[in-house]
Amino acid sequence: MSKIARFGVSIDSQLIKKFDALIGRKGYATRSEAIRDMIRDTLVEQEWESGMGETVGTITLVYNHHTRELEHALTDMQHKSFHQIISTLHVHLDAHNCLEVLVVKGSSRDIKTIADRLIGTRGVKHGKLTMTTTGKELV
Amino acid sequence: MSKIARFGVSIDSQLIKKFDALIGRKGYATRSEAIRDMIRDTLVEQEWESGMGETVGTITLVYNHHTRELEHALTDMQHKSFHQIISTLHVHLDAHNCLEVLVVKGSSRDIKTIADRLIGTRGVKHGKLTMTTTGKELV
Amino acid sequence: MSKIARFGVSIDSQLIKKFDALIGRKGYATRSEAIRDMIRDTLVEQEWESGMGETVGTITLVYNHHTRELEHALTDMQHKSFHQIISTLHVHLDAHNCLEVLVVKGSSRDIKTIADRLIGTRGVKHGKLTMTTTGKELV
Amino acid sequence: MSKIARFGVSIDSQLIKKFDALIGRKGYATRSEAIRDMIRDTLVEQEWESGMGETVGTITLVYNHHTRELEHALTDMQHKSFHQIISTLHVHLDAHNCLEVLVVKGSSRDIKTIADRLIGTRGVKHGKLTMTTTGKELV
Repeated sequence: MSKIARFGVSIDSQLIKKFDALIGRKGYATRSEAIRDMIRDTLVEQEWESGMGETVGTITLVYNHHTRELEHALTDMQHKSFHQIISTLHVHLDAHNCLEVLVVKGSSRDIKTIADRLIGTRGVKHGKLTMTTTGKELV
Repeated sequence: MSKIARFGVSIDSQLIKKFDALIGRKGYATRSEAIRDMIRDTLVEQEWESGMGETVGTITLVYNHHTRELEHALTDMQHKSFHQIISTLHVHLDAHNCLEVLVVKGSSRDIKTIADRLIGTRGVKHGKLTMTTTGKELV
Repeated sequence: MSKIARFGVSIDSQLIKKFDALIGRKGYATRSEAIRDMIRDTLVEQEWESGMGETVGTITLVYNHHTRELEHALTDMQHKSFHQIISTLHVHLDAHNCLEVLVVKGSSRDIKTIADRLIGTRGVKHGKLTMTTTGKELV
Repeated sequence: MSKIARFGVSIDSQLIKKFDALIGRKGYATRSEAIRDMIRDTLVEQEWESGMGETVGTITLVYNHHTRELEHALTDMQHKSFHQIISTLHVHLDAHNCLEVLVVKGSSRDIKTIADRLIGTRGVKHGKLTMTTTGKELV
């Protein structure tokens, strides 16, 4: 069971007023929650920058499923990296366009390589790697 | 059926050499494919910046499923925005941590609002909005 | 004279430990200072996203000063926008390459337009807009 | 003297139409120039990610010059890193706020460390590191 710490922040009253307005619009219930989110976000960035340890990313791909060979290529590449690719979600956006999200676990280096390969596949209209976390190191 | 155009790019030979090395590492089969991807990426950015028209985003959330009320809150918020949220993928990262990816369609403004709300929910350890596209406007 | 407010943040003890290590490496003297910086950074982002009010940006350009007409074009464009461009710094990086930083004040829209024009000028090897602030709204 | 290469890009006619509209708004004279800029931008990103070789960054700081000790601290830190800091520009934004831009040359690691230290100094309201290039490797 993890312990809760508590610390005080001193801040100009005008600055905290602006921050309260912003986090209100974003739907945060408390300042603590907003600040914990900022802290976690910074730590996840560092995790990816350091390149060490196991992390998690999602790869989002939009493509036209009529493109010959594309679906085959995607499946093939996913099988080669099956240790890293945990799960995928496929959405039919319209009669032509598909969106696929892959959840990938591994070193930041490996995840970047898989993302580069998939995004660079002919027929993929748009692709993005989102860097997130296993959650293990973040409470 | 869409027509294919062709145009020439003049470029310093050292610059294209470096570019060829980079796109080789990223797995692009041709320069054209790499350049089309850069062009599409820039157009998607503009689509989100302009705020006009319908677009698509994915929202990635990592959270501890033991957190009381969190799953309920997520479900509730997703139901309220059910017109926008097309589909979700849920992955059990380990005994405590879950990852959820939501595919959301709507105006960039609406998608940002939904993302802010979900990411700001107590118990979400890390959240990210990824801006992609319906694919309709990109060939 | 502005008043100082003080508020408490409750946070898991492991999370604050990791954060302390990070801000130590970054050279922050106190947690309050690190958190105020995160808050200000988020507010500056919002300022640019909203597009309202006067703000400040710096435009960084690296270019080869031998490129015919380039310096003339840059000077010309800077004169046309002289109300916005407050000051510029010119550095000779080597016998061929120059770096120029322009400090620009105006609406985020105007600053983006000036940056696009300058970065798009033939002969500019690399250009970036950095979004900062007048400082008036941030204490 | 560098040689000019030329290569052809095949692209859907609708996609190039949208791209032409975009680069027109950004003020590019030719498609080649726009594409060379995208290529250079990607190469500069890689240069910073690889962490190898000498590169250039600009550090933008906005601060209140009344803050006791701040200017002294900035000067002191700049002197310690005088091999890396090539030049600085100081602008009086208003009666209270100053903007300072530093041009820094060195490894990406060293430049990031200097930026972290300066941005983390008490009294700095907003700071940003902009990653650019010596220009040597980019034609």
